[in-house]
Amino acid sequence: MERETPEAAPPPTFLRGEEASSGSSSARARFERLIRRVQAEVCAALEAVEEGSGGGGVVFREDAWTRPGGGGGISRVLQGGHVFEKAAVNVSVVYGVMPPDAYRAARPDAAAGVEKAGPVPFFAAGVSSVIHPNNPFAPTLHFNYRYFETEAPQDAPGAPRQWWFGGGTDLTPSYIIEEDIKHFHSVQKQACDKFDPTFYPRFKKWCDDYFHIKHRGERRGVGGIFFDDLNDHDQETLLDFATECAASVIPAYIPIIERRKDTPFTEDHRAWQQLRRGRYVEFNLVYDRGTTFGLKTGGRIESILVSLPLTARWEYDHKPQEGTEEWKLLDVCINPKEWI
Amino acid sequence: MERETPEAAPPPTFLRGEEASSGSSSARARFERLIRRVQAEVCAALEAVEEGSGGGGVVFREDAWTRPGGGGGISRVLQGGHVFEKAAVNVSVVYGVMPPDAYRAARPDAAAGVEKAGPVPFFAAGVSSVIHPNNPFAPTLHFNYRYFETEAPQDAPGAPRQWWFGGGTDLTPSYIIEEDIKHFHSVQKQACDKFDPTFYPRFKKWCDDYFHIKHRGERRGVGGIFFDDLNDHDQETLLDFATECAASVIPAYIPIIERRKDTPFTEDHRAWQQLRRGRYVEFNLVYDRGTTFGLKTGGRIESILVSLPLTARWEYDHKPQEGTEEWKLLDVCINPKEWI
Repeated sequence: MERETPEAAPPPTFLRGEEASSGSSSARARFERLIRRVQAEVCAALEAVEEGSGGGGVVFREDAWTRPGGGGGISRVLQGGHVFEKAAVNVSVVYGVMPPDAYRAARPDAAAGVEKAGPVPFFAAGVSSVIHPNNPFAPTLHFNYRYFETEAPQDAPGAPRQWWFGGGTDLTPSYIIEEDIKHFHSVQKQACDKFDPTFYPRFKKWCDDYFHIKHRGERRGVGGIFFDDLNDHDQETLLDFATECAASVIPAYIPIIERRKDTPFTEDHRAWQQLRRGRYVEFNLVYDRGTTFGLKTGGRIESILVSLPLTARWEYDHKPQEGTEEWKLLDVCINPKEWI
Repeated sequence: MERETPEAAPPPTFLRGEEASSGSSSARARFERLIRRVQAEVCAALEAVEEGSGGGGVVFREDAWTRPGGGGGISRVLQGGHVFEKAAVNVSVVYGVMPPDAYRAARPDAAAGVEKAGPVPFFAAGVSSVIHPNNPFAPTLHFNYRYFETEAPQDAPGAPRQWWFGGGTDLTPSYIIEEDIKHFHSVQKQACDKFDPTFYPRFKKWCDDYFHIKHRGERRGVGGIFFDDLNDHDQETLLDFATECAASVIPAYIPIIERRKDTPFTEDHRAWQQLRRGRYVEFNLVYDRGTTFGLKTGGRIESILVSLPLTARWEYDHKPQEGTEEWKLLDVCINPKEWI
C-alpha cells in the first residue's frame, strides 16, 4: 500500500471521481457518510461522559491522512481520561487490489472461472473502535462496520462485480455483571430483530467463534454480534442494517459506563483487569484479521495498533481460584453462554 | 502435539530408548545434559543476584512435564524479584513429526527426491530464556540454544538423516549505555572467534535481521548473535560451539545487571521501558518463530508465553523528541550499528 500523507484537516470525502461530489447517492458515498457520522457521534458521547465526570478538557485528538491513489482515514484517539484510559474511533477508506483468492473466499458461488484471474481492484470503507475504560468493572467495547466492493475480475469472463458488509459490536469485561451483559446483548438483538429473526442467533455465535484465543481455549470476552461477507439480503437492507447496528453502539454501551465508571476497586481488581488486557493483546496480535492484515500490508501502524490497551500484564501460570469472581469471568470465556 | 502431563519432579532424562541411559554419549544425550546444566547455572546466577540485593527468598519456581510419546520439559520462573521482574529459563525435549517442507528448507542441498516424502520424524531439544529486570537501565536478555535431528524421510530413497543447531543470545535495553553493549557484544565475539572468524559478523547480522519488527521498521533491541539450521561444520565442533555460547550467557549479562540494577530512575524512564516492552510483545506474538509455531502446534502455553514481560504499555503515536536518550535507543533500533 502507498504510504499515507498526513493532512492538517480531514477532507470532505476520501472518495474519488464522481462519487466525491457531495450529492452522490452511491452505496460507497452513503457508507462513507455513515461511518463519519458514527465517528463524530461516538466521540461526542465519550467526551460527554468525560465532561460529566470532572474530566473536562480531555478530548479526542484527530489525525487525518490521504493516500496518493485515493482513500485515506481519520483516527480519533482519547488517552488518559478520567473515565477512559484509551479510546479510539477510526474511519478509513481504501482503494486497493486483492488476490483473487480473497475474492473467491468471499463469493464461493461466483468463483467459477476466477481461478486464472489477476488481482481484483477493491474499495473498502469502515469505522473501527476500541474503548478501554479505567475502572475494572467497566468493560472494554469494540465495534467495527465495513463495506467492501470489488470490480469485476479481469481475465474471468462472467465473474461479477461484488459487494458485501462486515462488522460487529462486542463487549470485553473483566468481571461478569449480568445486568450489564444482558443489557448489551438485548440492544444487539433488538437491532438484529428489526431485519431478520435469524440474525441475532447467527451473529452471536459467529462472534463467539471469531473472538477465540485458540491457544488459550478462551474467548476474548462475552461477545455480541459479528458477521462478514454478508450479501444474502439486498444491498439497501444491509446498508440499513449496518446503520442500525452502528446507531446501537451508544445505547448499548454508555449506560453501562455510567453505572460502573466510579465503582470502588482494589489493586487486585486492577491486576486482574491488566491480565485480561494481556489476553486482548494476544487476540489482536495473533488472530484478529484486521490487525494481522493491516500489519502485513503497510496500513497506518498507529491506527491499527491503537486497539491495544494502554497497559497490559502477563503473569506466569495465573489461575483464579474456583468460585471467585475472576474464575467466573474465565469460565464464561471458556464456555460462552446465552445471555438473553 | 499430545497434551503434557505435569510431573512432581523432573525425571533424570526426557530421552527415550537406549539414549535414556545415563552413560549415553549420543549427540542427543550430550545436548540434553548441556541444556539442563545451563538451566541450573543461569538460575543459580540470577538467584545469587537476588540474594545479594536483599531479595533473599525470591527463587525460581519449577514446573516439569512429560508427554506420553516421549519428551517433556522443565520451566523455571522467577517473578516479582528485587532485581528481576520476570525471568524464565526453560528446557524442553520434543519427539515430533515435521512437514517435508521444513526438512527441505533446512537442507536444500539434500532436497532432491524429498518432494513426495511424508512427514519426517524429528527430535528437538533446547534451552530458552528471557530475563526482564525491574530497573529501566538494566537490559532484558534473551537466549536460546537448540539441537534438531530428523530421521531419514520415508518414501525418499537416498535422502539422509539430518541434524542442525540453532540459537543465539541478544540484548534488549531501553537506554543505550555503550559500555554495556560493547561488553555484551565482545563476549559474544570471543565465543564465536574460538571457532570461526566468520561466525561473529555473520551471526551478528543474522541477529539484526531476525529480531526485526517489520511493521515498525525497528529491531527489538541491540542484537547479539543468532543462527539457525547450522550444520556447515562437523557435529562435534558445533556442539562445542553451542556449549561455548551458552557458557557465555552469565559473563555477558550478569556484570551489566550488577552495574545497573540500582541505578536511580524516574517515572518517565519507567514509562519508556514499558513502551519498549510493548514492542517486545509485538515481536514475540507476531514474528518470533518459536512462539508462533508453539502457539499453533499445542506446545505448553505458559512456557511459551512466559517470554512476555510482566507489564507492557502502548501509547498512541508516541515519538521521542530528537536528541533525547529515548530517541537514541530508537535510532539504534532503526539503524543497527557495529558495536565493536
